[in-house]
Amino acid sequence: MESIRVDKLNEYLKEALQYKIDHKTKPVGSLGYLEELAVQIGMIQSTLVPELKNPVMLTIASDHNICEERVSPCPVEITWQQVLNFLEGGGGIGLFCEVYGMQLKVVDAGVNHDFPDHPNLIKSKVRKGSRNFLNEPAMTMDECNESINNGRKIVADINVNGSNLVGFGEMGIGNTSPASALMSIICDIPIEICVGAGSGLDKNGIKHKTNILRSAILKHGISDNPIENLSRFGGLEIACIAGGMLEAASRKMIILVDGFITTSAALVAYSINPNVRAFMFFAHKSDEGGHSLMLDYLKARPILNLGLRLGEGTGAAMAYSILQGAVAMLNRMTSFDEAKVHDTTHIRID
Amino acid sequence: MESIRVDKLNEYLKEALQYKIDHKTKPVGSLGYLEELAVQIGMIQSTLVPELKNPVMLTIASDHNICEERVSPCPVEITWQQVLNFLEGGGGIGLFCEVYGMQLKVVDAGVNHDFPDHPNLIKSKVRKGSRNFLNEPAMTMDECNESINNGRKIVADINVNGSNLVGFGEMGIGNTSPASALMSIICDIPIEICVGAGSGLDKNGIKHKTNILRSAILKHGISDNPIENLSRFGGLEIACIAGGMLEAASRKMIILVDGFITTSAALVAYSINPNVRAFMFFAHKSDEGGHSLMLDYLKARPILNLGLRLGEGTGAAMAYSILQGAVAMLNRMTSFDEAKVHDTTHIRID
Repeated sequence: MESIRVDKLNEYLKEALQYKIDHKTKPVGSLGYLEELAVQIGMIQSTLVPELKNPVMLTIASDHNICEERVSPCPVEITWQQVLNFLEGGGGIGLFCEVYGMQLKVVDAGVNHDFPDHPNLIKSKVRKGSRNFLNEPAMTMDECNESINNGRKIVADINVNGSNLVGFGEMGIGNTSPASALMSIICDIPIEICVGAGSGLDKNGIKHKTNILRSAILKHGISDNPIENLSRFGGLEIACIAGGMLEAASRKMIILVDGFITTSAALVAYSINPNVRAFMFFAHKSDEGGHSLMLDYLKARPILNLGLRLGEGTGAAMAYSILQGAVAMLNRMTSFDEAKVHDTTHIRID
Repeated sequence: MESIRVDKLNEYLKEALQYKIDHKTKPVGSLGYLEELAVQIGMIQSTLVPELKNPVMLTIASDHNICEERVSPCPVEITWQQVLNFLEGGGGIGLFCEVYGMQLKVVDAGVNHDFPDHPNLIKSKVRKGSRNFLNEPAMTMDECNESINNGRKIVADINVNGSNLVGFGEMGIGNTSPASALMSIICDIPIEICVGAGSGLDKNGIKHKTNILRSAILKHGISDNPIENLSRFGGLEIACIAGGMLEAASRKMIILVDGFITTSAALVAYSINPNVRAFMFFAHKSDEGGHSLMLDYLKARPILNLGLRLGEGTGAAMAYSILQGAVAMLNRMTSFDEAKVHDTTHIRID
């Protein structure tokens, strides 16, 4: 990929945003984390009156030939079946985008299926599934960069078309395997701590999956180059998401990160350019074991904690409703002056 | 108050609801707590296809003459000023009800102010502020029962008018004091653990508030009758909320409980009739110190954890958006059959 410039946030605005919030008709600090979310959004948009415009959910799908090693209990056909389901408004994300008011675009980054055209399907297939990375790198560097660049182009297009908020979700049977491997490498955490049940492995299945991933990491080794590691152990959707996140940050868009797999892409984007972190909002703490350690690594406080582990972007769609509250508070909640309420801004909790 | 009948939930339906959820196009259990919320709503409404109809937020306001003892750093005029602010769509709850799609009704249960008529103001003033309970019971038993019955009548009216979901919030400078006292008595937790900073007390202020509450409890003593305790240490809004919750449960309505003060009213309602608990949803874990212990006592898992401590119903309005997701999932998320996706219901996490 070409190098990408991501500006740091305008720290100067932080104080002005907090001042504005502190003069709302409420005790200072009493909206807790919602205030921090509002400040971050204001800083991203460099304004005291931010807006959430035309929010888009990108659910990016791909297959994983590591499934040949029986790392998932699910039939791989579910990936393409679910893509069609989402496009018809079904599944978790098709429904939640409607309920929470986001536009859904499903991206085929590498599904093992030929899809008919559909207005909400973005065709960015690099190949039918990443390779079985127990035997060979999951992608060539060219394939990996192609998927990163596809993600960049998709996000550039939705931004040009008027969106300033992009949620990322994913679909891909087997994709907790690349996500766990990337987590282990980027966060420097032993692989057995990074592996969870995925879509329903039992204890023996988890042990087997751990062994497969450990063997693969030993075989290919760990590079200093994050894109090399991504090509060895990643997935086409993870590469596409990481590229999309970098592009979004370079365009000062709000990035809403869903669960375990999407956060592994956030780890990749962060290792490529740490400035991307400031544009990210972490929707929820997933029930997939390693997710909370990923969040710790990124110093991220999740917005929701509902024990979700579905992926697709479902947690991100729900968390979008909380960001709407944060922005409404910043823009529209009355100040003491406006409301003729006795000013209590001098009262601060010790 | 007259005794009130609250039916237990239909446990028979639980399995059928979970069966329906388990056949949605997702791994079994992968929507975590959202699934539990959906099951509880289905059980409350005794149906596999529940609906959230005309949700109403009751923000119930009252004054507290315990403020004469300097238990709050805020001027007491803020109570009536905020009532007017809410009625104009201002403040946190005026705004959040609009953002999250709930109808706001503000109830004057005992504010020290004469309000003009307003279509969204329900006038249920029992007296101008509860008494200074350091010196005398906060309410006579008649006053206390009157406010309980007012809450019952208000909820009965909104139910008759087509609502099956009621959120409870409150406004009342000084009302963390009665809430802490009631918590201490009902949960049998030492008063110093139940007292927090409220709207902004410093450490000395918290110590002083604790001493005042301890003296009051020693003076009046603890009764076996929950309504006696409510009359001694409560507030008119807390009584009104507790009555409203009991009425809501008797009508099989969904009860959305906001923060610290509203949960103290839930404790009162629960001590009067424990069957009410099954109809309650706890919107969030407040940053007010004692709240998490209240939730533990009620075996409640909060929906959100955003460090809110504003009250008014703000957390409940935000959590309503999560309940909408739960109900949409139960009613409208596709099943494996409908979506032609390979059934994975046999795969269960060990």
